[in-house]
Amino acid sequence: VLYRTPEMENIFSRVAHLNAGIQFESALARAEATAGVIPSEAAIRISSACDSFQPNVEQIFTDAIPAGTIAIPLVKALTAHVGSVAGGYVHWGATSQDLVDTALMLQMRSGLELIDSRLRAVALTCRDLALEHRSTLMIGRTLTQHALPITFGLKAARWLGLLSRQLERLQEIRGRLLVVQFGGAAGTLASLGSSGVIVQRHLAEELGLGQPASPWHTERDRIVEIALHITVIAGCVSKIASDLAIMAQTDVGEISEGAAEGKGGSSAMPHKQNPVDITLALAASGLSTGLSSTIVGSLRQDNERSAGVWHGEWESVPNVFMYTDFALERLGAALRSLEVHPERMSENLSRTNGLIMAEALTMKLAEHTGRTDAYRIVQAACEHCMSQNRSLFDVATHDPDIQNSLSAEEISTALDPMNYLGSTEEFIDRSVSTFDQLPQR
Amino acid sequence: VLYRTPEMENIFSRVAHLNAGIQFESALARAEATAGVIPSEAAIRISSACDSFQPNVEQIFTDAIPAGTIAIPLVKALTAHVGSVAGGYVHWGATSQDLVDTALMLQMRSGLELIDSRLRAVALTCRDLALEHRSTLMIGRTLTQHALPITFGLKAARWLGLLSRQLERLQEIRGRLLVVQFGGAAGTLASLGSSGVIVQRHLAEELGLGQPASPWHTERDRIVEIALHITVIAGCVSKIASDLAIMAQTDVGEISEGAAEGKGGSSAMPHKQNPVDITLALAASGLSTGLSSTIVGSLRQDNERSAGVWHGEWESVPNVFMYTDFALERLGAALRSLEVHPERMSENLSRTNGLIMAEALTMKLAEHTGRTDAYRIVQAACEHCMSQNRSLFDVATHDPDIQNSLSAEEISTALDPMNYLGSTEEFIDRSVSTFDQLPQR
Amino acid sequence: VLYRTPEMENIFSRVAHLNAGIQFESALARAEATAGVIPSEAAIRISSACDSFQPNVEQIFTDAIPAGTIAIPLVKALTAHVGSVAGGYVHWGATSQDLVDTALMLQMRSGLELIDSRLRAVALTCRDLALEHRSTLMIGRTLTQHALPITFGLKAARWLGLLSRQLERLQEIRGRLLVVQFGGAAGTLASLGSSGVIVQRHLAEELGLGQPASPWHTERDRIVEIALHITVIAGCVSKIASDLAIMAQTDVGEISEGAAEGKGGSSAMPHKQNPVDITLALAASGLSTGLSSTIVGSLRQDNERSAGVWHGEWESVPNVFMYTDFALERLGAALRSLEVHPERMSENLSRTNGLIMAEALTMKLAEHTGRTDAYRIVQAACEHCMSQNRSLFDVATHDPDIQNSLSAEEISTALDPMNYLGSTEEFIDRSVSTFDQLPQR
Amino acid sequence: VLYRTPEMENIFSRVAHLNAGIQFESALARAEATAGVIPSEAAIRISSACDSFQPNVEQIFTDAIPAGTIAIPLVKALTAHVGSVAGGYVHWGATSQDLVDTALMLQMRSGLELIDSRLRAVALTCRDLALEHRSTLMIGRTLTQHALPITFGLKAARWLGLLSRQLERLQEIRGRLLVVQFGGAAGTLASLGSSGVIVQRHLAEELGLGQPASPWHTERDRIVEIALHITVIAGCVSKIASDLAIMAQTDVGEISEGAAEGKGGSSAMPHKQNPVDITLALAASGLSTGLSSTIVGSLRQDNERSAGVWHGEWESVPNVFMYTDFALERLGAALRSLEVHPERMSENLSRTNGLIMAEALTMKLAEHTGRTDAYRIVQAACEHCMSQNRSLFDVATHDPDIQNSLSAEEISTALDPMNYLGSTEEFIDRSVSTFDQLPQR
Repeated sequence: VLYRTPEMENIFSRVAHLNAGIQFESALARAEATAGVIPSEAAIRISSACDSFQPNVEQIFTDAIPAGTIAIPLVKALTAHVGSVAGGYVHWGATSQDLVDTALMLQMRSGLELIDSRLRAVALTCRDLALEHRSTLMIGRTLTQHALPITFGLKAARWLGLLSRQLERLQEIRGRLLVVQFGGAAGTLASLGSSGVIVQRHLAEELGLGQPASPWHTERDRIVEIALHITVIAGCVSKIASDLAIMAQTDVGEISEGAAEGKGGSSAMPHKQNPVDITLALAASGLSTGLSSTIVGSLRQDNERSAGVWHGEWESVPNVFMYTDFALERLGAALRSLEVHPERMSENLSRTNGLIMAEALTMKLAEHTGRTDAYRIVQAACEHCMSQNRSLFDVATHDPDIQNSLSAEEISTALDPMNYLGSTEEFIDRSVSTFDQLPQR
Repeated sequence: VLYRTPEMENIFSRVAHLNAGIQFESALARAEATAGVIPSEAAIRISSACDSFQPNVEQIFTDAIPAGTIAIPLVKALTAHVGSVAGGYVHWGATSQDLVDTALMLQMRSGLELIDSRLRAVALTCRDLALEHRSTLMIGRTLTQHALPITFGLKAARWLGLLSRQLERLQEIRGRLLVVQFGGAAGTLASLGSSGVIVQRHLAEELGLGQPASPWHTERDRIVEIALHITVIAGCVSKIASDLAIMAQTDVGEISEGAAEGKGGSSAMPHKQNPVDITLALAASGLSTGLSSTIVGSLRQDNERSAGVWHGEWESVPNVFMYTDFALERLGAALRSLEVHPERMSENLSRTNGLIMAEALTMKLAEHTGRTDAYRIVQAACEHCMSQNRSLFDVATHDPDIQNSLSAEEISTALDPMNYLGSTEEFIDRSVSTFDQLPQR
Repeated sequence: VLYRTPEMENIFSRVAHLNAGIQFESALARAEATAGVIPSEAAIRISSACDSFQPNVEQIFTDAIPAGTIAIPLVKALTAHVGSVAGGYVHWGATSQDLVDTALMLQMRSGLELIDSRLRAVALTCRDLALEHRSTLMIGRTLTQHALPITFGLKAARWLGLLSRQLERLQEIRGRLLVVQFGGAAGTLASLGSSGVIVQRHLAEELGLGQPASPWHTERDRIVEIALHITVIAGCVSKIASDLAIMAQTDVGEISEGAAEGKGGSSAMPHKQNPVDITLALAASGLSTGLSSTIVGSLRQDNERSAGVWHGEWESVPNVFMYTDFALERLGAALRSLEVHPERMSENLSRTNGLIMAEALTMKLAEHTGRTDAYRIVQAACEHCMSQNRSLFDVATHDPDIQNSLSAEEISTALDPMNYLGSTEEFIDRSVSTFDQLPQR
Repeated sequence: VLYRTPEMENIFSRVAHLNAGIQFESALARAEATAGVIPSEAAIRISSACDSFQPNVEQIFTDAIPAGTIAIPLVKALTAHVGSVAGGYVHWGATSQDLVDTALMLQMRSGLELIDSRLRAVALTCRDLALEHRSTLMIGRTLTQHALPITFGLKAARWLGLLSRQLERLQEIRGRLLVVQFGGAAGTLASLGSSGVIVQRHLAEELGLGQPASPWHTERDRIVEIALHITVIAGCVSKIASDLAIMAQTDVGEISEGAAEGKGGSSAMPHKQNPVDITLALAASGLSTGLSSTIVGSLRQDNERSAGVWHGEWESVPNVFMYTDFALERLGAALRSLEVHPERMSENLSRTNGLIMAEALTMKLAEHTGRTDAYRIVQAACEHCMSQNRSLFDVATHDPDIQNSLSAEEISTALDPMNYLGSTEEFIDRSVSTFDQLPQR
């Protein structure tokens, strides 16, 4: 009830569903006239009636329960609106599922466009963060523990890489999977004689959808693949939001959500600033990914048209679009208002007294002593750090074995996180460049 | 968008949620006055303001997104409505989650009552079918194959048994799991000093909810157990609906849904009568059971109050109530209008030419020949039936090995399904009696 | 492949499954002899043969694939082992599913016992932590932010409360849901004539299982409820493990897993001590909770015995037992070796410069100024703290409005977290006492 | 425990996992030598030691529990096997997850190949069925009811189309998603200085894997997409197996699984032939699709390397490969041994006394009377059929309104299902041709 954006709600509203169904009927009539299956005048009349038709949404959804589908009451009402003679040609040769599935395809087309924009906007913000914080040092954390230094730019660049791959796939999916449904009562287009396939082609063209090799009333792989990708995008949101939530902890404090009037406060605690956008992004993305099994389960549809599993799609498919879009929107809001605290990142980096640089010191020392000795010497130094609560620099500069090989300046250089970033820059550049080369929509 | 009954939608509507929250605030004020924590006059004023308060639902839900919860804008609006002085005592010592969780508990209480009635009604219809069709023979099917005769009454009685167990558990759950949430900002009730536990007790009494040993902001086992039981009930619906769908197949034809104006027809095919209620019951129950993992996943809530997982419950918990209630309602409609076709059951029973009675014949023959010989003789007879497409009675009455031991009448008796029902009657009686002994609500 | 304990693996091993099936056959023979259905000598022979029978596990599982069940090859092999005459009475009147379901019930009985012990052990450690750290101050965190002080004992006590409720339910479930399966080919016990129900009762007694009102070949609610509870327990593990993971973060450092040889190190980073037990507990519990929808989906079983869904239980049900037991074992290990760092808890408590005590100061000041003025004054003080990076004590003792009402000592007292714990002690006591009153197994 | 093929079990066995890890170390050493990072002699020694190394599987998996990963004990054992000097260069610059993830990629590569072959074999059988039964009439069923005639070849052709699309995607996925993991402790390849990216490229080439733009320790989209596609394939199996199960019902009898010694029988019922392969295919495919949410949930991985979710993949990913491969194998077995019963298809086609041809008759009659009259006349005729239990041909040839326009022969032609198949042939041809044009592996 909370987890939907107005834009996506419009795309999957009851009225939008009916309008997409009307669009199907209009296109069908024109396609059939083109193929010579129904009279041209009938098609003209139907098309024009479709343009002016405003269905009684409430009534049609009420009647859909005994009818088992919105198609029957919708076609009935549309037929009446078209009037006699031409009315007899409405829905010619089609079955209810042709209308409903094609309507869903049209709605998903809009939904995919919206997700694409939203995803692109989030990616763009990640790109900005990657470049701006290319050299903003922070600690890399693995299994909850401080590991080695990274930069915040690298973190953002990897988010960007993740999102770019989803954008790429989104584009590929839109070209391949959005197809028309047209098969008639049992998928043979029997009542159209030998014209079935021709009408199918014209219909697809009218609607700007792809033409499938055959009807797919109970082969739901395309819808499943689309909806699954939407849940995967939600999963990507959850990864990024989860990283942000960790960084936003009071104990970490490396980022915070931008404050705003009425945002994230607590009535009881004046000092609190909750990461609200992140929280809601996590909630909505979890709802979306939790539907993945239901979505894949939708592949099990019996016979020529199934009883039940298909009907479940009418709820699960719109829901994953709703949840994912909301999650993307909240994540986007969080990222755009993000306050980054490099000073806290820097503070946290030194929490282990320099121990995170032990590997770096070992590598440097090894140039003089060989790797085995270096490892032994540095490990001993690390133990002194921990038992005496001293910094690695302090211990190292007082350790005769290290002093023999390295000057204080060299030690200092080896212990500087900025000098131990490996391929960080290159990974950032690659990520940005991959994104920049994505085709524009 | 289709899969909700008006009754359950009312219980989990936005306004109902806010009203339950207002009910919490009203009860809290009274409880705190009773405990001497706030002035009596303040409590009286708050209580009366709560009675007259009609929140701006749209506004509060819009503000809930930046606030991260409906509690903050709701309490703000309520406080303004209460006015100065007393307004300062609204929500005293409570945290947002206290309000939201308790509101959900109140809504679930109503939801459980509704599910209970709906389930009871379905069970009652199963009881009627069990008694009416106690002796209506049909084939028992296992792994899709004809096995041995049963009666339709037995099938209905086992549905009844299944549902009775869920009713019993529903009652147990309602007594055990519906508790108040009250812990304050970090679950210590710190701002109430030593009065916290006393207020908690009064609050529980005011609302007619149980008093938990401690706050449970991040221990969601009760909510999870309730919601899971609701998905289990949906799973039970899916079992019964699935049995009905099998019996309703044109090829089986043992039951059909009662016809009605606008129900289950096909625009193209005048002969079709689709099992629409069953279909929608299957759809909705599948949506509910598909949420079980999401529900259980909600147990993983961090710290003293979690970011994200909790917020997901606001969607998943109402949804399982909605879907399950709708599924129960559709199943109930299907069962109440059910047309049972005993003649088709009887016809189907003889589809295997009596082979389903081979076991019965073996048992009878064994009394004369011993079991080993009987098995060998009857198996040979079965093979003749299949290869020559003759009935088992025909083959048996012409088989010298069988004729030696059994007269045609004895064979006929042995092959009569009515005589091979074992404990069928007793199982029916037990099921009915278990249901009849369930306590009334 | 990693996520199983040897103990649970033994309970659900292939050989254990076959042995439970043999136990069923042995008990069935005795029950049928008692009921006068088969000769006593046959039962004695079968029982004794069952005792000595060691099935060829590999062969039986290979044959189970074409047979569709282990019951057919197992019964065949057992019959051969029993030898002629008595062999003819093996499996008398039973169907394959009677054997397989009852075997699963026997295995689950052992599995539930093991889970009970493991859960009890974890709870006991939580109890110890609750008492030991009853007054160990730490910060309560909500939505990732510092909220108000709690004690680590309270946190542990709430874990204990969570686990105690699961133990209670475990006990209730074991008494109610472990029942025998016995229905014959179509659930009528047809081949036993009027003796079916008597045999069923003796069989249940022989095995120490409950006697259901009727067979339940396709009413899986009991198995589903058991398995779901196991996933709920896994969910509880995930909550506790997740709390621990947060506290174990280098940035928080409030707990660490006890170090041990070969435990949680990193080849590259000498300073790292990964929370390994917690990590694996999270992994295994997530695998278990992720199966909940599959488990509930198992309710949809058709007809008198279903094709496919039932067969899936053979994998999903053992798996939730395996994963949950492993998760409990790892969590237990983490808790038993837990190193608690009260000094870090204390340090973290003061990270916000005392702001977490603002609410407490407001309450104290309100006794002199009234609540509205107090709130305004303290809020202004908080803003000074943040903008000037000073402690609340420092600001408050220099604030004329506060000094007018409160002495430095009174301010100090008000700002002492130890004085702002509300009902903490009582909640701990209640939790411990609830656990202590749980019946011993 | 039952649901795995020996071939897939080999690919995902413990020893195969360790061997893939060893393959990683061997390739890494060579790549680093090529890049000049480690001495050539060390690489030669490591490579040759890897070839001869046979790890103690049991020991390594036991040690993996405290270590939290198999990588640590494996690298330790391998290092010892390599011996001093060169041993110091084993695993140089890599982190545990580099080894484990790359090993999984290598195993998935084999797994995808196996799935591809298995899927291709199933598709090929569908192709044969489509061509052989191109004109084998059967009834099309929608919402469990008889709808219009189709041919069994069309049904098989649509299965083929479904599987062809999965094969196509499988190929695309194998080219795009199988990449090496190499990032070092925090994903920066810090210890390799500026050589990190070069080593990464050589490593990818050595292993025949793709080179990702950056490490992806916590961006799991590739693994998720692969594993999800495997569950989608399982979902496709479930669709086909479900269709077969419906056709195999005794009441339908249109197909049966080929009988074989020890296959699908019943100890109690000599007449039963259970569809065992279909049943087990349904069981295994359901287990696979049920894991989809767990798989997608794996996207939520924190920081630079996560604690728990990643570790869950070690079980869930192999399991979906196991279950899906088993499901494909069983479905393949069912289809290859399939006995098709055209006479039963024909019989079933006439169960509704010709009513399924009402639409066809209406279309024919409309040529003479116009569509509105035709519909009215035929509907009345249908009602007579049902109320008088007569065939549509009988009623139509005695109906004056119809006789006026159509001769008995014309009526007979209109009512012949063979003449009302619409685009059936074309859809079959398209499906076969799409499959035939798939690139060979």
